[in-house]
Amino acid sequence: MSAFDDLMAFQRQTEALAQVAGRLGWDQETVMPEGSAGQRAEEIGALEGVLHARRTDPRIAEWLDKAKAPDAVGEAQLRQIRRMHKRMSKVPAKLAEEIATTMSLAQGVWAECRAKEDVAGFLPTLRKVVGLKRAEAEALAEGGDPYDALVDDYEPGMTGAEMAAMFDAMRPRLVALRERVLGAAAPKGLVGSFDRAGQEAISRELATVFGYDWSRGRIDMAVHPFSSGSGHDVRITTRVSETDPFNCFYSTIHEVGHAAYEQGINPAYALTPIGQGVSMGVHESQSRSYENQLGRSRAFTGWLFTRMREVFGEFGIADAEGFYKAVNRVHPGYIRTEADEVHYNLHVMLRFDLERALIKGKLEVSGLEDAWNTRFRADFGVAVDRPSNGMLQDVHWSCGLFGYFPTYTLGNVYAGCLVKAMRADLPGLDGRVAKGDLSEATGWLRDKLQRHGGLYEPRDVVRRACRFEPSEGPLLDYLEAKFGGIYGV
Amino acid sequence: MSAFDDLMAFQRQTEALAQVAGRLGWDQETVMPEGSAGQRAEEIGALEGVLHARRTDPRIAEWLDKAKAPDAVGEAQLRQIRRMHKRMSKVPAKLAEEIATTMSLAQGVWAECRAKEDVAGFLPTLRKVVGLKRAEAEALAEGGDPYDALVDDYEPGMTGAEMAAMFDAMRPRLVALRERVLGAAAPKGLVGSFDRAGQEAISRELATVFGYDWSRGRIDMAVHPFSSGSGHDVRITTRVSETDPFNCFYSTIHEVGHAAYEQGINPAYALTPIGQGVSMGVHESQSRSYENQLGRSRAFTGWLFTRMREVFGEFGIADAEGFYKAVNRVHPGYIRTEADEVHYNLHVMLRFDLERALIKGKLEVSGLEDAWNTRFRADFGVAVDRPSNGMLQDVHWSCGLFGYFPTYTLGNVYAGCLVKAMRADLPGLDGRVAKGDLSEATGWLRDKLQRHGGLYEPRDVVRRACRFEPSEGPLLDYLEAKFGGIYGV
Repeated sequence: MSAFDDLMAFQRQTEALAQVAGRLGWDQETVMPEGSAGQRAEEIGALEGVLHARRTDPRIAEWLDKAKAPDAVGEAQLRQIRRMHKRMSKVPAKLAEEIATTMSLAQGVWAECRAKEDVAGFLPTLRKVVGLKRAEAEALAEGGDPYDALVDDYEPGMTGAEMAAMFDAMRPRLVALRERVLGAAAPKGLVGSFDRAGQEAISRELATVFGYDWSRGRIDMAVHPFSSGSGHDVRITTRVSETDPFNCFYSTIHEVGHAAYEQGINPAYALTPIGQGVSMGVHESQSRSYENQLGRSRAFTGWLFTRMREVFGEFGIADAEGFYKAVNRVHPGYIRTEADEVHYNLHVMLRFDLERALIKGKLEVSGLEDAWNTRFRADFGVAVDRPSNGMLQDVHWSCGLFGYFPTYTLGNVYAGCLVKAMRADLPGLDGRVAKGDLSEATGWLRDKLQRHGGLYEPRDVVRRACRFEPSEGPLLDYLEAKFGGIYGV
Repeated sequence: MSAFDDLMAFQRQTEALAQVAGRLGWDQETVMPEGSAGQRAEEIGALEGVLHARRTDPRIAEWLDKAKAPDAVGEAQLRQIRRMHKRMSKVPAKLAEEIATTMSLAQGVWAECRAKEDVAGFLPTLRKVVGLKRAEAEALAEGGDPYDALVDDYEPGMTGAEMAAMFDAMRPRLVALRERVLGAAAPKGLVGSFDRAGQEAISRELATVFGYDWSRGRIDMAVHPFSSGSGHDVRITTRVSETDPFNCFYSTIHEVGHAAYEQGINPAYALTPIGQGVSMGVHESQSRSYENQLGRSRAFTGWLFTRMREVFGEFGIADAEGFYKAVNRVHPGYIRTEADEVHYNLHVMLRFDLERALIKGKLEVSGLEDAWNTRFRADFGVAVDRPSNGMLQDVHWSCGLFGYFPTYTLGNVYAGCLVKAMRADLPGLDGRVAKGDLSEATGWLRDKLQRHGGLYEPRDVVRRACRFEPSEGPLLDYLEAKFGGIYGV
């Protein structure tokens, strides 16, 4: 066996164990008995300990020194392993351990404080989390920008400055669109109650229509929808609200976007370092393409309207045009995860600026609530009424996920580029989408992007799919055309 | 930290990882997508590799050398660790690996050959399995009896000779009872179809009534009912046949018996070597006490009759007395897992004698089918009509589980002792059982036996609960009284 083969065999077992750890997480959120949480924490801790030991195994450096990749795929494998290895070796073991312990407790504190609207109770924990993440960021940055070092965990190759430039370019056009739209009359929403069985049936149908491979996955219910796993076992969850069927349907389509990416990767890459989505931004580009650009399009909502009428009867919307407007209703709200396409990126920008300042030491935890509320009033025109609608709404910071938020908007931006290129390649696409046939669209994404997994760098794989340099332009053009049309502004 | 503390901390993580491996097995049998099997095999292989490395870690010997137990519980922990360590160190790594690989493939070959009634196709594989298990048994026995060495994996401290003596004592009384019963008129069975939802509802009710702790477990459907996990996450499965509701109900009660044992262990022992059932025989004593001695008693079947009438209406049985007889119908059959209480142990004895001869080299694989069929005709009075009703019916041998079968009967024997002692301690028990109140009975078993986990040796824990020397007598007395009464013989 060559050093390359040895390294890949070792890595393959690590990837397999990482899949097991992911499945424990799935189990915890879907089927685990409530009384098992304490034992589960120990089980996860033991498995994470095994994974950490493997990822910091001294043989990896020796293998990397000697390994020669046989081809371009092998080069990509080594690139991924080198990146992970470098990251692991820069963070002292003691700090890594403290971060792991602190974050697992911090999430519970956050949940409790959010339920009690208790910012003061959360601040000491958040201060500790920010302190640890600053220390980690400095260790990773080696004198460079600490926030960039954290972004690199989620979006390799992207910097905070590049993201800031992208957001600066988006902001004026988004704000202007928002003002035009909010000045116009709001379309009618749905009326009535939508039974659980009907929602579940349509949810499963949507997964099938969007190409979810049921032989390698399953859908369960969970409080927060998610996609979990890579390779041949990619499971998703959704949820049902009897008064808001769109919550269920678009959660399902969104998670199918994530899952289809994982399921669409070349099967030869399964259980290897490139056998999973290449970055959070590219992952989100798939979920957003499925959910928004395709799922909330005029063509597809026409099909969905017919199916909902067949299953639920009347619900206060007269025709497909009105239904399209109801699906795409714009209204300002406090909560990012419930935001429409016009507002969503403004929520992200707020978090990006605040977390970047926190990590760079330009904002302290004690000033975070004021900073959030001031910025929210400026951007959204209303005052935050309570912390769970403000700085306590997202779990991310309690888990130490600094640098993650901007990848949501990057995903929207990439989705804008990808669907623009897709529409150029596939004339007449909407005609097929209107019949509930998404196969051409999802096939294009699989062929152009998904199948590559981690073979190319994130921005590179989007560029190769689009055949133009990705930018925020296509997303903004799409939003202005779509919402300008719906609202007549 | 002392050597004892170091060892216990190390062991705790191993136990946690073993729970994860068990949960992967649960997942595979209940919720895993069909296309995930190949990847799952790699995941399990990677995790088993981790477990094997931990169980053969050279530090264990060093810790064991120096460790001093602080108390009797600590002594029991060390005893369990020493036993496992000794076992691991006696089997050469290469042999252990070959056994693991062979068994995982052999099970598939067995399933295929059973479906095709193809004994000849299975023999080469079985020959390899027997060869490997003989080699393992010899390595473990170190000059002693090889079959005893295998029995020790499932029933520590018990020998093949002791089991043979027990079976010899049981056989004449069982055969005589069987002949008397089969000479009498058979009671009426159930008529009709029993809808799935009704069976599932009663199944859940039975689990509750028998004390299953839902906060630390769940019930799902699987092809073969099983119980899985220890400590705070103990899950069971059952199955539904629309024409045979007893299959569902008594599978559930049986698995609740296993699960209640695990759930009943002192929580302080969770994730330690004594935090699980002490042997297969003692485990089976719980499942059989729940299923047969309690679940198929005249008192409890009266309650079940009422519930079934409420849920399903008429099903051809006029009263509780007739229902009790229907539940306990005796009829000779080919299949061990479908056998009644009178026949069950005869099935086990057949397997015990054959597998003991196989491991000791007194029977070769080529002669197994003849030996099985000859013995079956002698014991059951009918000829085996096809291999899936004969030597291909059980999965055990293909998995290398030699020495496991006799623990089923040992469990029945221990159940006979335990319930005899329980009835002496709890006068008027049947009155409460007849009202569906099993709490006194299950509480007795938890308090006298279950809570100890692996604190005492298997036979010792039964003796402590009974306060008499366990023997086959109480089981035989119970069977003769019960079936003599039902059949009037």
